[in-house]
Amino acid sequence: MRYNFMNDYNECAHERILEAIAAANREQDDSYGLDTRSEHARALIHAQLGGAQSDVHFLVGGTQTNLTIIAASIRPYQGVVCAESGHINVHETGAIEATGHKVIALPSADGKIRAEQIARCVAAHYADSTAEHMVQPGMVYLSQPTEVGTVYSLRELEEIRRVCDRYGMPLYIDGARLGDSFAAEGADVFLPELARLSSAFSIGGTKMGALFGEALVINDPALKKDFRYHMKQRGGMLAKGRLLGIQFETLFLDGLYEEIGRHAVAQAQRIAAGVKARGYALLTDSPTNQVFPILPRALLQPLANEFGYAFWQRYDETSDVVRFCTSWATPPELVDALLDAIPAKA
Amino acid sequence: MRYNFMNDYNECAHERILEAIAAANREQDDSYGLDTRSEHARALIHAQLGGAQSDVHFLVGGTQTNLTIIAASIRPYQGVVCAESGHINVHETGAIEATGHKVIALPSADGKIRAEQIARCVAAHYADSTAEHMVQPGMVYLSQPTEVGTVYSLRELEEIRRVCDRYGMPLYIDGARLGDSFAAEGADVFLPELARLSSAFSIGGTKMGALFGEALVINDPALKKDFRYHMKQRGGMLAKGRLLGIQFETLFLDGLYEEIGRHAVAQAQRIAAGVKARGYALLTDSPTNQVFPILPRALLQPLANEFGYAFWQRYDETSDVVRFCTSWATPPELVDALLDAIPAKA
Amino acid sequence: MRYNFMNDYNECAHERILEAIAAANREQDDSYGLDTRSEHARALIHAQLGGAQSDVHFLVGGTQTNLTIIAASIRPYQGVVCAESGHINVHETGAIEATGHKVIALPSADGKIRAEQIARCVAAHYADSTAEHMVQPGMVYLSQPTEVGTVYSLRELEEIRRVCDRYGMPLYIDGARLGDSFAAEGADVFLPELARLSSAFSIGGTKMGALFGEALVINDPALKKDFRYHMKQRGGMLAKGRLLGIQFETLFLDGLYEEIGRHAVAQAQRIAAGVKARGYALLTDSPTNQVFPILPRALLQPLANEFGYAFWQRYDETSDVVRFCTSWATPPELVDALLDAIPAKA
Amino acid sequence: MRYNFMNDYNECAHERILEAIAAANREQDDSYGLDTRSEHARALIHAQLGGAQSDVHFLVGGTQTNLTIIAASIRPYQGVVCAESGHINVHETGAIEATGHKVIALPSADGKIRAEQIARCVAAHYADSTAEHMVQPGMVYLSQPTEVGTVYSLRELEEIRRVCDRYGMPLYIDGARLGDSFAAEGADVFLPELARLSSAFSIGGTKMGALFGEALVINDPALKKDFRYHMKQRGGMLAKGRLLGIQFETLFLDGLYEEIGRHAVAQAQRIAAGVKARGYALLTDSPTNQVFPILPRALLQPLANEFGYAFWQRYDETSDVVRFCTSWATPPELVDALLDAIPAKA
Repeated sequence: MRYNFMNDYNECAHERILEAIAAANREQDDSYGLDTRSEHARALIHAQLGGAQSDVHFLVGGTQTNLTIIAASIRPYQGVVCAESGHINVHETGAIEATGHKVIALPSADGKIRAEQIARCVAAHYADSTAEHMVQPGMVYLSQPTEVGTVYSLRELEEIRRVCDRYGMPLYIDGARLGDSFAAEGADVFLPELARLSSAFSIGGTKMGALFGEALVINDPALKKDFRYHMKQRGGMLAKGRLLGIQFETLFLDGLYEEIGRHAVAQAQRIAAGVKARGYALLTDSPTNQVFPILPRALLQPLANEFGYAFWQRYDETSDVVRFCTSWATPPELVDALLDAIPAKA
Repeated sequence: MRYNFMNDYNECAHERILEAIAAANREQDDSYGLDTRSEHARALIHAQLGGAQSDVHFLVGGTQTNLTIIAASIRPYQGVVCAESGHINVHETGAIEATGHKVIALPSADGKIRAEQIARCVAAHYADSTAEHMVQPGMVYLSQPTEVGTVYSLRELEEIRRVCDRYGMPLYIDGARLGDSFAAEGADVFLPELARLSSAFSIGGTKMGALFGEALVINDPALKKDFRYHMKQRGGMLAKGRLLGIQFETLFLDGLYEEIGRHAVAQAQRIAAGVKARGYALLTDSPTNQVFPILPRALLQPLANEFGYAFWQRYDETSDVVRFCTSWATPPELVDALLDAIPAKA
Repeated sequence: MRYNFMNDYNECAHERILEAIAAANREQDDSYGLDTRSEHARALIHAQLGGAQSDVHFLVGGTQTNLTIIAASIRPYQGVVCAESGHINVHETGAIEATGHKVIALPSADGKIRAEQIARCVAAHYADSTAEHMVQPGMVYLSQPTEVGTVYSLRELEEIRRVCDRYGMPLYIDGARLGDSFAAEGADVFLPELARLSSAFSIGGTKMGALFGEALVINDPALKKDFRYHMKQRGGMLAKGRLLGIQFETLFLDGLYEEIGRHAVAQAQRIAAGVKARGYALLTDSPTNQVFPILPRALLQPLANEFGYAFWQRYDETSDVVRFCTSWATPPELVDALLDAIPAKA
Repeated sequence: MRYNFMNDYNECAHERILEAIAAANREQDDSYGLDTRSEHARALIHAQLGGAQSDVHFLVGGTQTNLTIIAASIRPYQGVVCAESGHINVHETGAIEATGHKVIALPSADGKIRAEQIARCVAAHYADSTAEHMVQPGMVYLSQPTEVGTVYSLRELEEIRRVCDRYGMPLYIDGARLGDSFAAEGADVFLPELARLSSAFSIGGTKMGALFGEALVINDPALKKDFRYHMKQRGGMLAKGRLLGIQFETLFLDGLYEEIGRHAVAQAQRIAAGVKARGYALLTDSPTNQVFPILPRALLQPLANEFGYAFWQRYDETSDVVRFCTSWATPPELVDALLDAIPAKA
C-alpha cells in the first residue's frame, strides 16, 4: 500500500515532539503531572485562553478524558445529552454508562445538535409529572469538530450555552481533533471562545500529532475541585506525567498545534476538491480533516490496493461512502497520487 | 372524585391478602425469604411452570427486580436491548445505567420489538470491525404486557428466543402486569411458555393486587448461582420476607392471580368498547387492562372532576390521548358511571 | 420451639399497623409517596424534630436507605468512614461499594467510633502528600444504637459533629433500631438532637414493629435536592407509598414508636439482669434490645430446643457468646420462661 | 539536588526504547493494539511463558490494568482479597470500588499475605450462615514484588494457588516492578511460573524503563473472552497501540527487561549494604529495588539538599524510615555519592 488514509493516528508523532522527549530524557522531574514541563505546558495553554481562569489537566486518552470529566460533573441520576453519532454514545464501549450515567442521544443528520433541540429535550423532562422517574438531563456533550468533520459556529455555541445556563447544565466539548476545527474555512471558534462558552473542553493530542494525550481545560469553577482525585481513580493520571507536559509544551510553544491542523485540513480539502472535480459527491460538507466521498464500488476495490480508507456506509446498489482522513503526517504528493488514482466519473 | 382510573396501584391490596397477613401476624418465622411461607409460595408457583426447574425469588419492587436480574446477567461491557418505550429505558431513572450498563433502545410503535429487529441490531454489532469499541448487545428485555398494554404472542416469543439462542443472549421478560396478559383475548402465553422461552421473567404483584412485591422466576441455570447475594446487594431482599411469601401464596393458591387479571381486563375492555361505541378511537388496540382513548379536551376537562385518568400525549388541536387503567379493585358500577359521563361523539 | 429470640423481625407487625392498613384498604390515593398518608406521616415526624426544617422520605428497607443516602451525599472519589462492625461494612453485601464508594472501616471494640479517631483518620489523609492517590473521607456513618446494642451519648455525637464540620463531611446516622436507643437507660439523644447534629438519619420501621420501611430524615439542605430521583433510581420508591405513610402515621401518632422501644428494651434488660443474676457475664453492656451473654455450650445446646437465639462468636473452650433480641412482640411471660430455662452458674 | 532517589519513574525511558520509537515514527500501522509491533511484542513475551497459551494485552498504566482485569474477573457481589498495604487498597483512589467491588484487606507486616490467611478468610465467609449478606471473596490480588519490596517465593505462590483452586478464585499478580523481582537474590519465580500459577499477571513497563505501559498476561481461559471490550470501556486501549508494542518489543528482544531489573536491584542493594555497614537498620529486608533505612532526622535534613528520597513513616523520637528507590537510570557513581553523604552511626 502506498499510503493509508484510514485515520489520523497511523503514524507515531510529529518529529519535534520526539526530539523534545529525547532531549529531556534523563532530566529528573516530579511525577503525576506535578512536573515542571507540565507546569510550563499548562502556562502556555493558559496564556491562549483569553484571560479565563481555567484549570488545565493532561490525561492519557480521549475515552478517559470524556468519562472522567462527565462522571465528575453530574449527579448519579443525571445523564449527558449528545448527538446520536457522538463518540461517547457510539464508540467508547459504554464507558459513560460504566460510570453510572445514561447517554441521552438526540437525532442528528450532520453530527451536530442544535440549541432548540436540547432545550426541547430538557424542557420536556421538567414538564413531565413523572420527571423523577426519568433520567434528568444534567450536561451537554458536543464534539468540535464532530465525528463527521462538521464544525459548530460561534453563534451555535452561544445559543447552546444559553440553553445550558437556563437549566444549570455544564457544557463539555470534546476536542479530540480540535486543531482541525481551527483550520476550517470560516472558523470563528478558537481557544478563547471555548474557554468562555464551555464548562470544560479537551484539546486533543493523539489525533493532532502527539504520541498520545489530551489536555482538559476546566473553565467552570464548580468542576475544578479535587479533579486530580477523579483522574487518578479513573486511571487517567500518568506516572511520568512529564511526557504529556513535554508534548503539549511542544505543541503550544511555536504554534505547532495550529500548523498541524492547517496541514491536515489543507490536504483533506484537496482530496475533497479533487473528488468533486472528478464528478463525485460528498456525503457531508466537512471543512476539516475528514472527507466522505460517495464512490463506485468498482473504483474502490482496486483503489484499496494502493490507498487505505475507512468504509463508512453503504450508499446504494453500486456505491459506498468512504472516509479519507489526513493528519500532520500526510505527504502532499501522496494526496496527488491518490487523486491520480481516482478517474473522473464516466 | 368518584373514582380514579389513573393506575392500577391506587388501592392497597386484595382483601384476601390482608387477611392472610393478619392471620399469620404473630407466627414467628425465618427472615430474608428463608421462611416457610416463601417456601410454600415458591412451591405453588413452581407447580405451574410446566415442569421447568426454575428458581423463584421474591423481591420488593419492579425497578429493583429489573436492575438486579439484568446486572446479574450481563458482563460489564454488555448492554440490554429493549423497546424505546421499555420501562427500563424510560421510567426507572437510569437504574440500569447506574449498574453500569447501556440500554440499547429499538424503535417501536406498539411497545413491542420484533425478532428480526433484534437480530438486525445484534448482527450489525458483530459485523462491525470496530465492535470492541461499542457496547455488545448482551440481553433482551421485553415487557408482557407492554407499557401500552399490548401482548406478545407465543409465536413472537419463540422467534425472539431463537434470535437470543443464536447469539447466546439471555431473554428477560418483565411481567409487572403479567396476570393481565393471561386474561387478554387470544392469549397463548402462560406460565409454562414463559418458563420455557425466557431465561428469567417476573410475576408482578404490586399491580396485580398485592401490597407490593414481584416474583422473579429464573429458568436459565447459568443465571441462578448466588442470586441471593445480588438481591441483598441491591436492597431487594426483604427482612420480613414472609410478607412476600404470604402474598404470593394467596395469589397462587386458588387462582386468585388469574381472577384479578380477568377482572381488571374485563373492566378495561368494557371501557374500550364503550368509548368506541360512543364514536371515539383508541390510540392502540390494547387487549389488557390499559385503554388509551383519544378524547376531545372539551370533554376531558369536566370529566376530570369525577374520574381520574392519566394524560398520555397530545393528539391534535382539540384532542388528547389519555389512559384509563383498571385493577382488581375497580368496581364495575363505576365503569358504568364513567361511560355514562362520556357523551357520544357529536 | 417456645419462642425465638433470634432477632426483632420474626413476627409481622404491630396489630395497630395492620388495622390501619386494613381500614384504608380501598381508599384511593396517590402513588410513590405523594399520597395523603405519607404527607401526614411526614408532618407527624416533622413536628417532633425540634423545629428543624428537614425533609422526610420513606424507603422500603435499610440497605436501600443506607446506599441511597450515602451515594447521594458523596463524590465519586470519596468514601464513607464507619466502624469495622458497621452494617454497611459487614452485612450489606458490598452495597456501598456497588455504588462506587469505599467503606473506610475504623477499629471498634464496642460498635462505636470516637470523634478523635475520625479526626485522626481524616487529618492523616489531608496530611499525606499523595492524598490524591487515596480515597478521600467524605462522610461519616454511625448506627444508633450500634450493631452490638450500644448507644452514642449526646456529648459523643456533638464531638463527632464538630469533626465533621471541621472537614466539611456530612454525618449520617443509621437508626434501624432507633426507638430502642430512646428507651436506653440514661438516653440523652432523641429526635431533636438527631435533627440538629446529623446531616441525615433514618428512623427504622422494620425492626420497630412495622411490616417494613424506614423514614429518612434529611437535615442538611445540601443533601435535599432531587432526592426522590435517587430513591427511584435505587429501587427505594414504593409504588404504593401510602403503605409506608400509614405505618409511620401509626407509629408516630400516639407515641407507639416509643412504646415499642420501651417494651423491647425492658424485656431485653430483664434477660440481661436475669443472666447476670445467674452468674454469667455479658460480652458488652448493651442498654438496648440486644443482649450478648456468655453461656456454657453445655447449657446452650438443650436451650436451643425451646428458645431461639443467634450464635455470635466463640468465647472459649466451653462457652459461646450468643445474642438474645427482643421486640414489640416479645411476650414477657416467655422472657420469664427463658430465664427459668437457664440454671444458675455452678 | 544531585540525584533523586524518590522513585523509579523520575526519568523518561531507556534510550533503546526512544530510539526504537524514533526509528518507527513514520511507519504507518494499525491502531488500538492490532498493529504489527504489538503482535511481535506479544509473540516475544509469549515465547517466554514456558508454553502457556496465554493472551497478552498492552494497557496504558497500572491502575487501569488493575481495575480492568479485576472488574473483568469477578461478579458484582464479589470482592478482591489483598494485603492491607496492597496498591489497590491504598493508592488507587478507590479505583476498584469505583467499578463496584469491595477490596477485602488482610493484615500484613511485610507486604505479603499468606495462603493460610487467605484460606481462613474465605472459609469464614462460606461458614457464615449470613454469607449472602456479605461480600464474597472472589479473587486474590498480590503484588510481586510487593509495595515494600519483598518477594513471594515459588512455594508461597503454589500454596496460594491451591487455596484459590479450592475456592474457584482467580489469582491476579500485579507486576508493576516485576523485573525487579526477577533480579532478587534467591528468586525462583519467573515468567513460566507466573504463567502457570496465576490466572493473570502484569509485566510493568512504567517502572521498568518504558515511557509508560503494562503488559497484561491472561492465563486463565475463562478470563480471556472479549477482554478488549473491557480495555476500551475503561479507557485502557491506546489509539497508537504500536507505542506499547514497540516498547515491549524492545524490552523483550535482547533481555533488556532483565538487564534493567538487575541494574536497579544491584544499585539498591549497594545502598542497603552501605547503610547497614554504617550501622543503621532497615525497616524490611527488601531484596529488590526499594530500600527502607531507619535514619536519624538530624542526618536526613541536610541529606535532602543533595539527594531525594521518600518519607515513609516516623520511626521514633529521633529517626524516620525513608525509602530510596533505584531504576534503570540510577548512575552507580551517584549511589557512591549518596553513601559518602551518610556518615557512620556514632
